[in-house]
Parts: sequence; C-alpha cells; structure tokens
Amino acid sequence: MLQINTERLVASLLELGTHGALPGGGVNRLALTDADRAGRDWTVAQMRALGMQVEIDAIGNGIATYAGSEDLPPVMCGSHIDTVRTGGLYDGNLGVLAGLEVVRTLKDAGVRPRRPIAVAFFTNEEGSRFQPDMLGSLVYVGGLPLAEALAAPAVDGPLLGDELARIGYAGSAPVGQPVVDSYFELHIEQGPVLDQQGIQIGVVEGVQGIYWTRLVFTGKSNHAGTTPMALRADAGMAAMRTAAFAHQLAEQTGGRQLATVGSLELVPNLVNVIAAQARMTVDLRNTDAAALAQVRAQLHAFAAQCAQEHGVQLEAETLADFDPVAFDPALVDSVEQHARAAGCSTLRLPSGAGHDAQMLARVCPTAMIFVPSIDGLSHNVREYTPPADIGRGAQILLQVMLERANR
Amino acid sequence: MLQINTERLVASLLELGTHGALPGGGVNRLALTDADRAGRDWTVAQMRALGMQVEIDAIGNGIATYAGSEDLPPVMCGSHIDTVRTGGLYDGNLGVLAGLEVVRTLKDAGVRPRRPIAVAFFTNEEGSRFQPDMLGSLVYVGGLPLAEALAAPAVDGPLLGDELARIGYAGSAPVGQPVVDSYFELHIEQGPVLDQQGIQIGVVEGVQGIYWTRLVFTGKSNHAGTTPMALRADAGMAAMRTAAFAHQLAEQTGGRQLATVGSLELVPNLVNVIAAQARMTVDLRNTDAAALAQVRAQLHAFAAQCAQEHGVQLEAETLADFDPVAFDPALVDSVEQHARAAGCSTLRLPSGAGHDAQMLARVCPTAMIFVPSIDGLSHNVREYTPPADIGRGAQILLQVMLERANR
Repeated sequence: MLQINTERLVASLLELGTHGALPGGGVNRLALTDADRAGRDWTVAQMRALGMQVEIDAIGNGIATYAGSEDLPPVMCGSHIDTVRTGGLYDGNLGVLAGLEVVRTLKDAGVRPRRPIAVAFFTNEEGSRFQPDMLGSLVYVGGLPLAEALAAPAVDGPLLGDELARIGYAGSAPVGQPVVDSYFELHIEQGPVLDQQGIQIGVVEGVQGIYWTRLVFTGKSNHAGTTPMALRADAGMAAMRTAAFAHQLAEQTGGRQLATVGSLELVPNLVNVIAAQARMTVDLRNTDAAALAQVRAQLHAFAAQCAQEHGVQLEAETLADFDPVAFDPALVDSVEQHARAAGCSTLRLPSGAGHDAQMLARVCPTAMIFVPSIDGLSHNVREYTPPADIGRGAQILLQVMLERANR
Repeated sequence: MLQINTERLVASLLELGTHGALPGGGVNRLALTDADRAGRDWTVAQMRALGMQVEIDAIGNGIATYAGSEDLPPVMCGSHIDTVRTGGLYDGNLGVLAGLEVVRTLKDAGVRPRRPIAVAFFTNEEGSRFQPDMLGSLVYVGGLPLAEALAAPAVDGPLLGDELARIGYAGSAPVGQPVVDSYFELHIEQGPVLDQQGIQIGVVEGVQGIYWTRLVFTGKSNHAGTTPMALRADAGMAAMRTAAFAHQLAEQTGGRQLATVGSLELVPNLVNVIAAQARMTVDLRNTDAAALAQVRAQLHAFAAQCAQEHGVQLEAETLADFDPVAFDPALVDSVEQHARAAGCSTLRLPSGAGHDAQMLARVCPTAMIFVPSIDGLSHNVREYTPPADIGRGAQILLQVMLERANR
C-alpha cells in the first residue's frame, strides 16, 4: 500500500509557515497581502515541481492538476493558504499541502490513477481582510458573481480585484473550471472534541448552519441612583436579558444547537449610568436547519419583546447566514471505512467552522477529514496538531482519493 | 415675609460657573485643581463681603458664619462647589450659593436670628478626582481619619493633602467645628421624578443605600462554532445571566429597589469567540436597608452558582457600600409644611444620589430640599433647573432655616 511521507509533509507545513511568520510564532498571511503572495508563489512552485498543470482563475484560486490515465473530471482536494492576522501553521495549509503530498506519493511510486488528481487553494477563505469568508470557493461554485467579489473592499481599503492584480494573481482561467468529480478536504478540527476524547480521525458529516446577527438596542442614558426602574430605557439590560435568553434557548433546544454572545459593548459603560446603547452579536449554529430557524425566530421575538418592555429601540442586522450542509453519505462512509481499516479511532461529527468544502458540496460529492487540534486552539499562534495526526489524516486522504479516482 | 432675590441668586450661579467653564457650556472644576481654587476664592470673597466669619478647616472645608443674636450652635446649610469633569452649574453650587442668598436676604433686611447661620462648602464631594466621594463632609463628621483623607491619591497622581496645600486650602481650623444645631441642603434632584410629574419641591426623606460590586468572571476563550455548549467556560454568558438576574431581583423586590449593570466588558469581544473574561459592575440601591442586604446576598449567591454552572472563576470586589440614611422627621415635616404654605406642589422622595447631607445626618438633625432637574440630567453640561424653581427652593431654605434658628 502507498504510504505518504509524514516528515516531508510536516517539513512543507513549516516551510510555508515561514512566509508571513510572526516574531513570536504563528503566521499572518491575510488574503492578497505581500505575505499571501509569497505563500502563493511558494505553493505554485511546489505544484510545478511535481509536474502539475497550474491554473490561476479570475478570482485568484490556484488549481493544480496531476493527470490521470483518462481525461475525466478530476478528483479534487484542497483548502486555503490565507490565514487570520494571528494564525497558525495548520488551518487551511494542511488541506493544500496534504494534497501535494498525495500527489508526491503517487508520483514517486509512478502511480497514475484513472482520473486526474487536482489540488486547489481558494482565495480569501478566512474573511479577515475581505467579506464574505470562503469567497474564492463561493465564486468557484457560482454562489457569488465574479464582479461582485472583485469589488469587495479590504478592511484596509483597496478592492479585492485591485489587490489580486497587484500581487499577480488575477488569473486568466475561467472560474468554476475544471468541473470536478468530487472534493475532499483534510482540515484540523479547530475545536476540542477529538483532542478531549482522544480520537484520531474525525469523519465529518457536514457543516453546521451559521447565523450571525448584530442587535443594537438604543435607550436613554440616566443616573442609576435617581431613575426609578419604571422610568428607565435601559439598553444594556435589554441586551443582556436577550443574551441570557439565547443561552437558555440553546440549552432547551439541545442536540447540536450552539449560542454565543461573544461581543457586547455598552455606551457609556459606567458603573452608575444606565446604558444608552448596547451593541451585541449573537452567533447561532446547528446542524439541523429547522431547529436553527426556530431558534433564530425565537431569539428575534424575545429581543423585540424585551426591547419593548424596556422602552428601547432595536435594530437587527444579519452578519452571516449559511444553511447547514450535509456531505455526500457515500464519501463520508468511505472516509470512515478507510480510517477504521487503518486502525484509527474515529468519530462522526459536524464541522463547527465553515470550510471551502461546504461550497464545493453545492456542485459535487464532497467529504472532509478532521485531525485533532490540541486544546481545540485555532485562529491562534499556538494552534498545533502533532505530526502523527497529520500523517494519519494525509494517509486517509490519499486512500479515499485514490479509490475515488480509480473507480 | 422675607423674600430671597431669585435674579441675584441665579446671577451668582452663573458667575461661579465662569470658573472652570467649558468651551461648549458646563463646568470642569475637579476637586483641588486650579479651577476649584478659583471657585473657592470667589466663594470665600462672597462670604467675606457678607460680613461672615470664614474658617477653612484642615481638610479644606470652608465654613462661613453669620452671627446670631445668641452664641449658640449655628443652623448650617451648604453643599459643595467641586464638579465632575463635565458638570453643570447647579449640582452642589446651588446649595452653597442659596445659603449665601439666605444670609444676604437676612442682612439686607437687618434680620439677625437667634442662632447663627453657617454656610459650608465641603471638599471633594464628587469623588471624581479623589476617592471616596463626600470626603470633606465624611471627615467633618469623624467618619474618616484626617490623615487617611490627606493621603488619598488623585486619579492624576498627587496626594490630596499636597493639592490642598498647593491651592492654599490646607486650613488651620479643626475639622468638625463648629458643632452645629442642624443642617439643611438645597439640591437639584439629579433625577427625572419631579420634572416628569411637574412637582416644584421635593421633600427628601433620606438617602437610599448604595452597594456597588465589580464581578470578574474568568473562563476560557474558544471557537464559537466548534466548542459544544457542555465543554465551554463562557465568562460572558455567566456575567450576562447574572445581569439579567439582577434586573429580575429588582423587579421582584419592588418598592424602591434599583439594579443597574452600567458597565460590562468582554475579552476578546469577538462575534465568534467565547469570552475568556467578563468584567461587570452591579449598582444596587434601596431606601430599605434590609431589602438591600437581601438583594445583595441573592445577587452574589446567583453569581457564584452561575459561575459554577459555566465552569468559570468569579472574583467580587466591593466598590461602594453605604447604608440608607433617614433624615430628621421633624425637619422633613418642616420643609413640607413651608413648601405647602408657599403654595408649592410637593412630593416626598428619597435621594437617589449621595450628598454631604447624609454625612451631616450622623451628627445633627438634617433635611434636604430638592428642586427639579430638567429631563433628570445631571453630571452633564446640559444640567438645567429653571430660575423659578431655584427661587422656590431658596425661599423654602430661608424659611426652614429661619424658623429653626429662631426657635
């Protein structure tokens, strides 16, 4: 049986991590910055060195193809190589470099599968510099018009299209090409479940639905000592009661329902002044679309009622809204079977974070493989996955892709 | 009947307001700054011009006495002339300058009451530059050792004693002298009740108890999408649930119970990151000491339980703790009777804010008179009380003091 080379793969992760390396460890390779260009240039060079045909499309996605014995739609894997401002070495990068390690292993063994193997890196997955996140893969599957994506402004000013051109990645290949047979993505879990339970391979069944809303409650600032409860328009209290309700909703709904209020700001934020304004975000996630929709409706109903009770105004803005995605059952089974056959412990779980795979799932059978994140840390310079886990994940990726490509 | 001169009183408020005047209106006369010295110098000059004997005590309180026909303990009135950083013309200043207007009226009419009339301004009532607030009157009544007060550091560095000396107000009079017969304080309400109900004179029955606590919940930062509810240590949620409980407590307790969470800060305060830390203040007030103590105990019990449920650490710090103060029933009745006799509408109410009067109440019969604050605004450059209300308040002050001084 073909075996990927774990040391070689880990070395490539470390080498890619030198581009945009932060002084204290970790990486800053925000999309379409000079550091991202350096990472892209290095990755493309790796692809070319493997004899792959590299195409850069009009949104800057890079797709490298290792020819099959027949001219069929390729089996693709990939992810992204942009990072958050204080990112690690693994998020995204592992999916791309494990794909190249798969090709390297095939090439070294002189194996050419029936279908081509494609390895992709998608533009601006993180969404840290341009909105929305998963932008490159979203454009690739036709979910966002190219022109609209090119016009997205960076948080630091310039337009995405201009930055693509500036770094030399406004490619000429049409977006959405090639049409692929299937898509696989190896990724670190970015959560604590596998690490805490000592599981080696996460068999990802899908991506949970995500709904983000910003609630802005506007009341009236007043003296905390001289304003009777009944005469207050306490924006902070309306917000915090709504936050507590969101928690209660998640507990009552159970299953995989998550609710997080990660951001709340009170104005003027003084001990003895009733808040005139509270700006709060609520992050709701669930793998069950119906349950998520119900929780979302209940949250907004409560917020509106709470605002009315407190005599404050409420404005709500949707910041993100993605339906749950179910991956292809046959491919998910295939991941699980190969992992078990390799003697790995496995757990079926949904992805809590968004990934390019959820976009690809719109156009082809798709699956993901997770490996553990130590302490669940990600989007963090201390993000870490041990070499043994990286090797196991890449080996499963090799086997499922090869089986799929040879069928 | 003697009548105070409203125009003259309002003119004096405007003139004192020129010292430390802010460009856009309002006043910044933080305690023991150069602006405070200018306000003190002007006030002392006014006192001397009325032929009053002025003493500055060791904590910088200024006490001016208009001799009575007998050498008895004086009937005192007063307040403070320091302001918050963005204060108005009325808070504190009215109580001092209305006292001088009372003396001016007596002097113009050649009236000398049986007991002396004293007018005091107390050091650092606001507590904006030195802690605690109401410091000068607290030292005056023996509630805080002089040495400790002199060692209080300013928010901008220097010690209170050094600042007193620097501005020439480290006086030689012993603190707590003279022993007074009684104390009256005219003040703007600093709340909306009188203004909203169209009441002219507030008959202040006492000052509510105040309890401030800072609660710091410390949990663990994690990804909002990948961390199951059961594996979270969500500091923000523990804090916000405790805030919601504080509101519920105030509603259930009823009466004059107030609960305010004016300040809450989440770390790192990002939409998709579970908060690692939440720093929150809770401001609880009630005129009923037993009810306040119960609410305080219930709050801390809930916070501790909530922290445990969320797996987060909790630290609590007391920032303020004052028992409710009841004013002298006979003096309170006297204020009400004189106001009604003058044809004023009246309302008995507690003071929601702290005042020097609550310190004086420890050593002599004390009462307060409130006049309306438009829109309840105070500690605000837009603080305003119309001349007619100022005149009514000063007239009642004159009458109750004269009656008390002549008994």
